[in-house]
Amino acid sequence: MTSPDPGHGPGPVPAPDPCLDHGLLAPVRAGTAAEAATGDAALLQAMLDAEAALTRAQGPARAGEAVTAAARADRFDVRDLALRARSGGNPVIPLVAALTAAVDPQAAPYVHRGATSQDIVDTAMMLVASRTLTLITADLTRTAEALATLAARHRDTPMPGRTLTQHAVPTTFGLKAAGWRALVLDAADRLNALAPPAQLGGAAGTLAAFTGPADREPSAPLDEAGSSSGPGLALVEAYAAELGLAPPALPWHTLRTPVADLATALAFSCAALGKLAADVLTLSRTEIAEVSEGAGGGSSAMPHKANPVRATLIASAAHQAPALASVLLASLAGAGDERPAGAWHAEWQPLRELLRLAGGASAHAAELTEGLRAHPDRMRANLDLTHGMIVSERVAAALAPALGRARAKELLTAASRRTATEGVPLAEALADVLPPDGLAALTDLADLTDPTRYSGSAAALVDRALDRKPEPPRD
Amino acid sequence: MTSPDPGHGPGPVPAPDPCLDHGLLAPVRAGTAAEAATGDAALLQAMLDAEAALTRAQGPARAGEAVTAAARADRFDVRDLALRARSGGNPVIPLVAALTAAVDPQAAPYVHRGATSQDIVDTAMMLVASRTLTLITADLTRTAEALATLAARHRDTPMPGRTLTQHAVPTTFGLKAAGWRALVLDAADRLNALAPPAQLGGAAGTLAAFTGPADREPSAPLDEAGSSSGPGLALVEAYAAELGLAPPALPWHTLRTPVADLATALAFSCAALGKLAADVLTLSRTEIAEVSEGAGGGSSAMPHKANPVRATLIASAAHQAPALASVLLASLAGAGDERPAGAWHAEWQPLRELLRLAGGASAHAAELTEGLRAHPDRMRANLDLTHGMIVSERVAAALAPALGRARAKELLTAASRRTATEGVPLAEALADVLPPDGLAALTDLADLTDPTRYSGSAAALVDRALDRKPEPPRD
Amino acid sequence: MTSPDPGHGPGPVPAPDPCLDHGLLAPVRAGTAAEAATGDAALLQAMLDAEAALTRAQGPARAGEAVTAAARADRFDVRDLALRARSGGNPVIPLVAALTAAVDPQAAPYVHRGATSQDIVDTAMMLVASRTLTLITADLTRTAEALATLAARHRDTPMPGRTLTQHAVPTTFGLKAAGWRALVLDAADRLNALAPPAQLGGAAGTLAAFTGPADREPSAPLDEAGSSSGPGLALVEAYAAELGLAPPALPWHTLRTPVADLATALAFSCAALGKLAADVLTLSRTEIAEVSEGAGGGSSAMPHKANPVRATLIASAAHQAPALASVLLASLAGAGDERPAGAWHAEWQPLRELLRLAGGASAHAAELTEGLRAHPDRMRANLDLTHGMIVSERVAAALAPALGRARAKELLTAASRRTATEGVPLAEALADVLPPDGLAALTDLADLTDPTRYSGSAAALVDRALDRKPEPPRD
Amino acid sequence: MTSPDPGHGPGPVPAPDPCLDHGLLAPVRAGTAAEAATGDAALLQAMLDAEAALTRAQGPARAGEAVTAAARADRFDVRDLALRARSGGNPVIPLVAALTAAVDPQAAPYVHRGATSQDIVDTAMMLVASRTLTLITADLTRTAEALATLAARHRDTPMPGRTLTQHAVPTTFGLKAAGWRALVLDAADRLNALAPPAQLGGAAGTLAAFTGPADREPSAPLDEAGSSSGPGLALVEAYAAELGLAPPALPWHTLRTPVADLATALAFSCAALGKLAADVLTLSRTEIAEVSEGAGGGSSAMPHKANPVRATLIASAAHQAPALASVLLASLAGAGDERPAGAWHAEWQPLRELLRLAGGASAHAAELTEGLRAHPDRMRANLDLTHGMIVSERVAAALAPALGRARAKELLTAASRRTATEGVPLAEALADVLPPDGLAALTDLADLTDPTRYSGSAAALVDRALDRKPEPPRD
Repeated sequence: MTSPDPGHGPGPVPAPDPCLDHGLLAPVRAGTAAEAATGDAALLQAMLDAEAALTRAQGPARAGEAVTAAARADRFDVRDLALRARSGGNPVIPLVAALTAAVDPQAAPYVHRGATSQDIVDTAMMLVASRTLTLITADLTRTAEALATLAARHRDTPMPGRTLTQHAVPTTFGLKAAGWRALVLDAADRLNALAPPAQLGGAAGTLAAFTGPADREPSAPLDEAGSSSGPGLALVEAYAAELGLAPPALPWHTLRTPVADLATALAFSCAALGKLAADVLTLSRTEIAEVSEGAGGGSSAMPHKANPVRATLIASAAHQAPALASVLLASLAGAGDERPAGAWHAEWQPLRELLRLAGGASAHAAELTEGLRAHPDRMRANLDLTHGMIVSERVAAALAPALGRARAKELLTAASRRTATEGVPLAEALADVLPPDGLAALTDLADLTDPTRYSGSAAALVDRALDRKPEPPRD
Repeated sequence: MTSPDPGHGPGPVPAPDPCLDHGLLAPVRAGTAAEAATGDAALLQAMLDAEAALTRAQGPARAGEAVTAAARADRFDVRDLALRARSGGNPVIPLVAALTAAVDPQAAPYVHRGATSQDIVDTAMMLVASRTLTLITADLTRTAEALATLAARHRDTPMPGRTLTQHAVPTTFGLKAAGWRALVLDAADRLNALAPPAQLGGAAGTLAAFTGPADREPSAPLDEAGSSSGPGLALVEAYAAELGLAPPALPWHTLRTPVADLATALAFSCAALGKLAADVLTLSRTEIAEVSEGAGGGSSAMPHKANPVRATLIASAAHQAPALASVLLASLAGAGDERPAGAWHAEWQPLRELLRLAGGASAHAAELTEGLRAHPDRMRANLDLTHGMIVSERVAAALAPALGRARAKELLTAASRRTATEGVPLAEALADVLPPDGLAALTDLADLTDPTRYSGSAAALVDRALDRKPEPPRD
Repeated sequence: MTSPDPGHGPGPVPAPDPCLDHGLLAPVRAGTAAEAATGDAALLQAMLDAEAALTRAQGPARAGEAVTAAARADRFDVRDLALRARSGGNPVIPLVAALTAAVDPQAAPYVHRGATSQDIVDTAMMLVASRTLTLITADLTRTAEALATLAARHRDTPMPGRTLTQHAVPTTFGLKAAGWRALVLDAADRLNALAPPAQLGGAAGTLAAFTGPADREPSAPLDEAGSSSGPGLALVEAYAAELGLAPPALPWHTLRTPVADLATALAFSCAALGKLAADVLTLSRTEIAEVSEGAGGGSSAMPHKANPVRATLIASAAHQAPALASVLLASLAGAGDERPAGAWHAEWQPLRELLRLAGGASAHAAELTEGLRAHPDRMRANLDLTHGMIVSERVAAALAPALGRARAKELLTAASRRTATEGVPLAEALADVLPPDGLAALTDLADLTDPTRYSGSAAALVDRALDRKPEPPRD
Repeated sequence: MTSPDPGHGPGPVPAPDPCLDHGLLAPVRAGTAAEAATGDAALLQAMLDAEAALTRAQGPARAGEAVTAAARADRFDVRDLALRARSGGNPVIPLVAALTAAVDPQAAPYVHRGATSQDIVDTAMMLVASRTLTLITADLTRTAEALATLAARHRDTPMPGRTLTQHAVPTTFGLKAAGWRALVLDAADRLNALAPPAQLGGAAGTLAAFTGPADREPSAPLDEAGSSSGPGLALVEAYAAELGLAPPALPWHTLRTPVADLATALAFSCAALGKLAADVLTLSRTEIAEVSEGAGGGSSAMPHKANPVRATLIASAAHQAPALASVLLASLAGAGDERPAGAWHAEWQPLRELLRLAGGASAHAAELTEGLRAHPDRMRANLDLTHGMIVSERVAAALAPALGRARAKELLTAASRRTATEGVPLAEALADVLPPDGLAALTDLADLTDPTRYSGSAAALVDRALDRKPEPPRD
């Protein structure tokens, strides 16, 4: 078989496509708004937004206007910036050079004035995070609404409760949906509580290079050590206000609470949606079939398949997020000195990835829950699979006063074994083995072993859960 | 050399000590209160507390009293319970048997009545967590106080600011200590915000087996499906109140927000203390020597050594905690069905370990910060190591208006190179290369290159940081 | 309800049980040989073994004998050593003092002579690892044997293949078991390839304090800088030989390959067994019921339940292990200087925990696979659940030549939809919609849609897989 | 300050750049060959290579040629494929449609014939991995060579050994470099041992849809259940040979050893380089200054700075890699059924990211080590920082025979304290406190306290380490 060798080796590398990521390996977020909001172009724009805000906050008005006008990502070559970022270790050094070159000589001295690279990267990450959180929480709100509808509609729909993979006692699909919603609201609460702060500290976080009010001329005297809070702290406030970000209490170059909080809230959100996905995946199994996605995914080879693709993709996000959060928590610990050599640089991709995963998972969750179809008939049929054994707990409780716990359990176990082996209804198997006083305790055996009559406080729990109102999403 | 072979192989296993952990491999928490509060005995007691509270909340008063009296950990064989836990996968099954056998026959039917194993394990973990959080936050409060004292005392003590391992511009030790304190307060806030809930749901979280008020006789009729919220929900409230834990909104067997919140707050705390430790370790280096621990650790072989042992042990906790938190976040995602087969069991050790690590790290942090000695003379000497180059940013800013940014940087780079190579003071090297207009711009070159005169808003930032008051610790 | 308050708060801490871990929270390893082999007593014994070997390797014979005789863990107070380990950060410092005191004055100078604490801790961890690996690989061998039996027995037992939770095409239980076995053998290979080395380097890994042959008197002249390899390197060989451990190429105080290799091989093993457990859990589901554990776990409340407890516990280990391995990989990166301040100390508990988890998981896996019951009748019944659609791929391939791929898929999709909705057999639904040339292509429609007739090369793959012979277990 | 609002909120999202990643946030790999080899275009090409190889291996020769000719990534719209991947959850479904449309109707039926999406994605990932491993190991070889040169050149260059941040005893820079090299060789060995296999199994891993030899016409009869190994297994061999990948023992859709092995070897490599980076960062500190990077990174604001940027970027990779490996180990455990719903999809990005991080880190490591400048004068000066205390271990050993260990240590501690406080040389302080017999034991006190005379077996260890030859890099 002679053919061109496409094999491995250092041979012909594919024709260079300058773009490294079109979303090909990330269907969970491909095409979502969160993906666009976290792309390199969006990050570059956020860095430019930070630079422009800094100049507006401290420079003469005309410089602020000039930098703001120049601060458009589409005028810069992202790839070139990325390559030139290598020598200094971050993209701000080449960006400042390019931005300075893009404004008139009068404005040039005010570009990046007094700032350090980390001020810009951190601020840009918080801008991107803030913008993406808005998208995520909106999707979580949609998800919670869809789940509220499901929970209300199926408040009294009985289905098997399953523990350690086995039918345990009945529950309701309403309670299940209400539980999913509770987790979604927990996630939304944690994301809504975040207030990503701007970053401005200068080379070592002392604001030493920020010396005067916004309109000060560059020849004014420098700030003195131990000076009052004056210009530096005011500048930080103005800068944050320009950006619509929270003002920081302290420069946080190495106090990484904002990043850690984002990390844990985003990973929590992915994991919370992951629980929903795990349940949907189980309930979608061919043998269980109690729910199905509105639009199942197809298969190239197997025409009959309708895969739970949305749940699958959400699960893929949930599998990745916790480990990414651990990187960011470790970076908090590793943020030594006034700027660490590596721990900070290690944050960028994991934080972006977490935003993308949470963004993708929440978008799919909204679609999944809005389209989810529950199948009460299958739930009902599955409740009967164990011929009444799913309420053995109830029967045991009913028998205990008459027979004692131990004797009740013993007889019930014997009856259950016969039911499991022969498939006779538990009620019948019980009737054969129970002594008269046992039978007398079971006033209505058919009712007692009816799996739709043992959902406990499920309905009340649904009602209570639906009383919890979501907080308004981020605006 | 003939000698008894102590080598490896399946040979003589060491004489069995029934205890598997005396803290030998965990100096970070050995001997701390958090270690005792999380030991197997403490967990067993917490499980017994949960059982007793459940009986008091629903059983007749005499049963509650009997179970409460019997619920003493020292009356049970922990190892035996651990071994018997294997067949069912959790320690509650054998514990219930043992506890039932320990009370009189009248009380026996009320032991564990209606509960599932997870109700007891989860509640016990939350009890242990709650008790341990009290210890941790108390130590964080001590730590924050010690750091406040350091920050105030060294509000104006200059030291080198370091970025990417290199001297950047000056900062102050006060600002450093204030930053550490901010992280410690962030950690305390996150721990104080936790309200570990009791767990009570019964076999599948529907409360179906909890059928009547606390004084109901066991022969009373069973609860009906779809019943009002009545007894089940009230029982949960009473049970939580008995335990001093928060009442849960819903049974959370598979809605693991409480565990995830504990995990992230504890890992955050370890990591926050890890940043402090990382800085102390760097500043303790023989060559830097700007701080030293009050009581350095010794070495068996090197009499001169005084190791920063407390910081080392805190760092060891910070290295472990983020990954443990990732296990618990993943368990949230993996909590399928009404009780998962594995994800729940995977939580126990990591959650306990996180409590221990945070407990140990905070105890060492309190000692470390209370005893930490700062050495302003060394800080001052280190500021001079670069012969003035540590304020090159300031000089560049002063030169820029006269020479333009680019030319200023060029000349400064040339002068810096000579300073770095020959060790001549930067002021002198600058005087040799600057043109007259450049020199004129530097009105007082000695002052301008004095590293103690360029700490910017550091003092103001310390003042602001100290205005933040800690929340009261958990009681 | 007046009752003694067992609530939370700083109140009465449970009576102190000096033992912190009886296995109560770790049913996956409680009572296993691996648990005993990794307990504090076993570790202490391994440290003593290392000290004794060092003295035998370098001291006079009488000193070696004396130290060997004294080196019995049961003569030392483990808890006391753990507490005294805090001030120096590791347990060797107090241990050396105690061991020195336990030998006669002539032998005392030869205790720990020239060594550093890390030499002893690292060597002890490798001894414990080596001993535990023997136990783990023995259980993996048992597991692989049981799986070989299952694979051979069920070489031709058809069952549904499931992808993305949905029935895809048939497979065989034999292929499934053969796949599990392949992973178990992969795990065993990785563990068998490990050769944990002894550690001996002295204070900074230069062997500087080891100055002469084993019988040298202490007054002999010290080693010279730049000396030949002579005594130092020979001593390392002798020491390793005494211990039955591999001799290290270099002291590895900060070259942590041995620890990283252990970590990844142990985590791999847990994860490999986790795949087996995941499949057993799914196949054990009430609705699927294609396998069941030999002895299912009971439930206190639900007499009918037989939980897949062994699979659950294995899964709990698999959930924890990868994150623990990540701690140890990070410690490799963090092993700065000649001994790091924290990264080394962070290894101890995660490494021990990985040994315990792998030990527990493999012990349960041996029991699980030896007792696993397959239910071919249920597999057969499940194959029919989709009324023939499980072989739609086969039908599509058969139709494509006649109708073209696209048209074949279209008609098959239509027929499948009807089958899914109405439950009519796919063969029947197809017969209704196919054009004559399509029908003609399906020479024997009943045979073509028989799910037992489409297992491809499954049997051949089983045969090939069983040809792979396990390596002999560690001795 | 009126200005266009660039703030956060749902407002104007940046103009859409269709490319999501130009490397802007990843300076560690921006511009490296590994980055290009792992881009979406490279992945797409690898998927096309897999499809073409499959057709060549089983289809008629003319179909193989047609598909091979069409299989050029630059003819497909990557973004469009990414977007269409969402509905089915992977990019192969739309790719097969596009590729089928791109070939003539005679060849069309042979596109993707019998394969499942995972066959193509897995094979493509292994192709990409294999190609990238070649790049990584080449850089590791360069790194090892550079380190061998450094180790040989500085075989006898003394420097302080540091433990727990404190000077301990002397070591040599040669031993340090030799240790780094040993880790680099360990990494290369682990990567060279990998043999990424092709993947081919069909829908459920049984090869059921592969029915005949490569030249079989599509109308030939289907394979029978239980058939001999014949065509299916032979096809797998042919397909792997076409691709230059290892043939798999079994389809490994859910037996993820190849992915786990890649993950752990890549994370190990990043971590091994991370140790080198950690040491370079420490030794580069302003106060230590024993090494410097050949071309330090600049700073926009501080003209004097020369940051260890390459070490910083390597460290950033080492911080991320272990957690990513943990995701892939967990995916091994989570690979349930015949294809899992999520665990597989969760592998793609972490595996790619690990390849990129290892590729970037090794490229920077080669540059770093080839350009690294050691400063023996600074090492020498630092050895004197403690006025002789760095050899206190040696002095203690020399005194012990005369005075006994305890008394020797006591006197040495007293002398060390004076040295530490007053800065008098240890030799002088000792002379003041030692009794006559102690002094007599120290025949040449100046020599004994000379820190260049106590490097033990360092030179011999360097020699031995350099005897280890690297394996040839992957071709």
